[in-house]
Amino acid sequence: MPKSSFALGLDYGTESARALLVNTATGEEIATAVAEYPNGVIEQHLPGGAAVEPHTSLQDPRDYLHVLQRIVPEVLAEADVSAEAVIGIGIDFTASTVLPTMATGTPLCTLPEFASEPFAWVKLWKDHAAQPEADAMNRLAQSRNEPFLARYGGRISSEWMFPKALRMLRQAPQVYAAAGRFIEAGDWLVWQLTGVERRSACQAGYKGMWSRGDGYPPAAFLQSLHPNFGEFVAEKLATDIHPLGKAAGGLTATWAQKLGLTPGTPVAVALIDAHAAVLGSSVAEPGKMVLVLGTSTCHLVMHDEPVPAQGVAGIVEDGIVPGLAAYESGQSAVGDIFAWFMRNMVPEAYARAARDAGTDIFAHLERLAAAVPPGAGGVLALDWWNGNRSTLMDAHLSGLLVGMTLATRPEHIYRALIEATAFGTRAIIDNHTEQGIPVDELYACGGLAERNALLLQIYADVTGRPLRVAASSQAAALGAAIAGAVAAGAEGGGYASFVEATRAMAHVRDAMYEPQPRARAIYQTLYAEYQSLYDAFGRGTFDTMKRLRQQVL
Amino acid sequence: MPKSSFALGLDYGTESARALLVNTATGEEIATAVAEYPNGVIEQHLPGGAAVEPHTSLQDPRDYLHVLQRIVPEVLAEADVSAEAVIGIGIDFTASTVLPTMATGTPLCTLPEFASEPFAWVKLWKDHAAQPEADAMNRLAQSRNEPFLARYGGRISSEWMFPKALRMLRQAPQVYAAAGRFIEAGDWLVWQLTGVERRSACQAGYKGMWSRGDGYPPAAFLQSLHPNFGEFVAEKLATDIHPLGKAAGGLTATWAQKLGLTPGTPVAVALIDAHAAVLGSSVAEPGKMVLVLGTSTCHLVMHDEPVPAQGVAGIVEDGIVPGLAAYESGQSAVGDIFAWFMRNMVPEAYARAARDAGTDIFAHLERLAAAVPPGAGGVLALDWWNGNRSTLMDAHLSGLLVGMTLATRPEHIYRALIEATAFGTRAIIDNHTEQGIPVDELYACGGLAERNALLLQIYADVTGRPLRVAASSQAAALGAAIAGAVAAGAEGGGYASFVEATRAMAHVRDAMYEPQPRARAIYQTLYAEYQSLYDAFGRGTFDTMKRLRQQVL
Repeated sequence: MPKSSFALGLDYGTESARALLVNTATGEEIATAVAEYPNGVIEQHLPGGAAVEPHTSLQDPRDYLHVLQRIVPEVLAEADVSAEAVIGIGIDFTASTVLPTMATGTPLCTLPEFASEPFAWVKLWKDHAAQPEADAMNRLAQSRNEPFLARYGGRISSEWMFPKALRMLRQAPQVYAAAGRFIEAGDWLVWQLTGVERRSACQAGYKGMWSRGDGYPPAAFLQSLHPNFGEFVAEKLATDIHPLGKAAGGLTATWAQKLGLTPGTPVAVALIDAHAAVLGSSVAEPGKMVLVLGTSTCHLVMHDEPVPAQGVAGIVEDGIVPGLAAYESGQSAVGDIFAWFMRNMVPEAYARAARDAGTDIFAHLERLAAAVPPGAGGVLALDWWNGNRSTLMDAHLSGLLVGMTLATRPEHIYRALIEATAFGTRAIIDNHTEQGIPVDELYACGGLAERNALLLQIYADVTGRPLRVAASSQAAALGAAIAGAVAAGAEGGGYASFVEATRAMAHVRDAMYEPQPRARAIYQTLYAEYQSLYDAFGRGTFDTMKRLRQQVL
Repeated sequence: MPKSSFALGLDYGTESARALLVNTATGEEIATAVAEYPNGVIEQHLPGGAAVEPHTSLQDPRDYLHVLQRIVPEVLAEADVSAEAVIGIGIDFTASTVLPTMATGTPLCTLPEFASEPFAWVKLWKDHAAQPEADAMNRLAQSRNEPFLARYGGRISSEWMFPKALRMLRQAPQVYAAAGRFIEAGDWLVWQLTGVERRSACQAGYKGMWSRGDGYPPAAFLQSLHPNFGEFVAEKLATDIHPLGKAAGGLTATWAQKLGLTPGTPVAVALIDAHAAVLGSSVAEPGKMVLVLGTSTCHLVMHDEPVPAQGVAGIVEDGIVPGLAAYESGQSAVGDIFAWFMRNMVPEAYARAARDAGTDIFAHLERLAAAVPPGAGGVLALDWWNGNRSTLMDAHLSGLLVGMTLATRPEHIYRALIEATAFGTRAIIDNHTEQGIPVDELYACGGLAERNALLLQIYADVTGRPLRVAASSQAAALGAAIAGAVAAGAEGGGYASFVEATRAMAHVRDAMYEPQPRARAIYQTLYAEYQSLYDAFGRGTFDTMKRLRQQVL
């Protein structure tokens, strides 16, 4: 029997990082360790005391290295695995989480002269301060008819790299001028570990408006936004962008020593966390849509061609698996709506009953809602509590509930909210299939997929598709490990392709959710009702939602 | 100084009856007494054990007389008023609350042969078993283009006298055959006290499809509904219908003795309870709309002419004050919606905070909602949790909430619900004024008017009209006493007219709610939003609500 080999997945989330050691032959998760970032998410004051502007979320890049030196030795010790048995490392990261560095990769915020300057720190994905810059970019791109818009559903987000860079230029030109590089934190971490700057097609494609054919947005476009922004790409980015599937480089001797690994161990180019979860859900082929179900939902499906589909939030060649175009859509609030409901709409008697039954309020409401037939007692919702991110792409939409009577109970509303998020997912699926991108099966991962069987059954019934659930409860970290195994290659004891790697290393639960004919028929009817409200409130017949929001401002 | 004189108001509600003794010169409420009906509301089994059909609500007419002999002596004793000082008696009653009697007035249910027959008992106003009969009447009346339909917004209710009589004929023909009279309980009580059958224009007009010009529905119409129903009016009703303002008769010696009053004391013809509350709110002239605010809201306003206005639930000449046409509209759930909200949508933390503050949950939410500016944080509702009773007259509509975001809190939704019921009232007011029936001022009475200052201010702001609140917390009983004082007449120590009587005996609170310009302006804008949803969901653009209800059935 040959000696086992292992891949290391490093999953960098918003609050903490996780290391996962995986058997490359079986996918068995041998050991895992998690550490929170010492400085967490910085939203009020820098560690030194300087105040940050509103809508800002920062991080300290030293935290990423600090936790790494804890979690990697910890999993190695726990697993009792030798350094040589670890054949590859993969990294996934939140995105667009970006930082300015010297040309050498040294973060500006680590230099004394920039330590008190918020723009020198890492801008976390959820930092929305650059909304004015995103608005300006969208207006200009529309007026210039920039071809990149078609790959992003016609609109780019304030969360992305270019708006964040432009805001830095406008608000802190001295930081901008000093930055030799402006880089995704995932790519920066790869650079630290390997000593080479190898940027990822996944991050550049989804968050940097880059495509294999067109590259980054043209200098003339950037120049029109600000006289000093025209050279941003040439000066501060790398134009050599790498798909997954090959190693970015080998682990440096310094980092090998710090982590207890072998120098030269292949490190994969970085992945966005949700995209890594696709691999961790066992998907590496076209036609299988992965729903990453959490506070929001990310929908990812691959296809042979990069069709310029409308209403899809991001279309990237080589975005996950080399040779395939990956399509990303999203619902901006899913678990967040349920949490809102539980916080605001569950009466005291229900909270007491849950306690008396020794269960939490989510489980209690799920049991009650499961006893309600499809149709939620006549209540129907539009699931736009945080706007609509895909298909309509309108942040100014809001939630709607209709059909309440004096007999309506909280479990009816809860079920209606679950059904509405399922209808929203069906709208996204239909938006793909109508534009020639097949969606044959569904895969789910993430917190909601772990916990909420009722939701999964409703999603199968509403979409009419079988739904499988990732066996791993840390699908992103597992996906990163898979990327590490592919970076090692067959010759390095790993795999030559993602299809082979996911087949061996990623699994789904035995239980599959099949559409039930009776529920399916009811939901066909109800989906027509959802669609008519969706069109009326989402496409301008009634601009009620937008005017109500303005009223509040 | 002349001796004081007093009028006695008898207010028969759903669960109990109240006696109120009022100083006729000042309106001072000298004494009051309440007694519950021993048999209450009968919805499952008769006191003898016989089961009743679904949607049935019965009462025992003996209860009405039983409680009378408690509450009248009680107020007389409490007030220490001599029998001679009581110059008149008025009665208000729920309606249509009807019973079959012998030609002598003896209720059939008091006869041994009918004691176990549910149809021989009093059918309470909220008994909805006759829905099939009401449907049949509406279909036939529409096909025959019966003129009475125009006085009832095009639709009659299963709660009314004729559907209840037709159901008795269909389901219990032996009871129907034995009934010499079929009569409103208010009219029956007047008959018992005076020995004469004098039916009220208020009850006949609102609940018996009667009008001064056309009388009851024609025999040919009734005959088409059932071969034995054609003679219903001629055989079982009285066609001599009396407006308020004169005595139905004088108190019999027997009842004078039982109650401790003087024989011959004038007894007014009966009033419906909500209509009595108009007088008790000090209104006896055109242009002043009274909102009787409770679980539902009843809107009553008088005008010189009986204009056949669309969307008004009942238009009756002499309906309250002789010589004026009284217009009744209604919102089928108001307090009921707030109670639904408190029961289903208020989280445990709020219930705890209310307890910690030593207040009830309604007062706690009112305080929080009062701190929210007009517009309810961007949430807008349609107030149709129990359908729409006026303007649209559609029981199959339901509630709608739009504008929720993750920042929406319970107090936003509560305020949106209050605002929605205010918009519903404004729609009713506009429906009057657009058809030439002026509504210049608002008066409010009832439980919600007592308690909810926020609601009253919002109603003033939304409608743009000053709103006064009845000083009496028992406006219906006070209105009945006013009717008693007018029945006595000026020559009997009372009043020659309702205007004089209400001016002396009924009062409003000092505090008046004036529309506030800033709120008014915001609500003008929001009302346009309400109207667009109202039209879309209420007038057929979206039949979503009806289809959702069918889905549940």
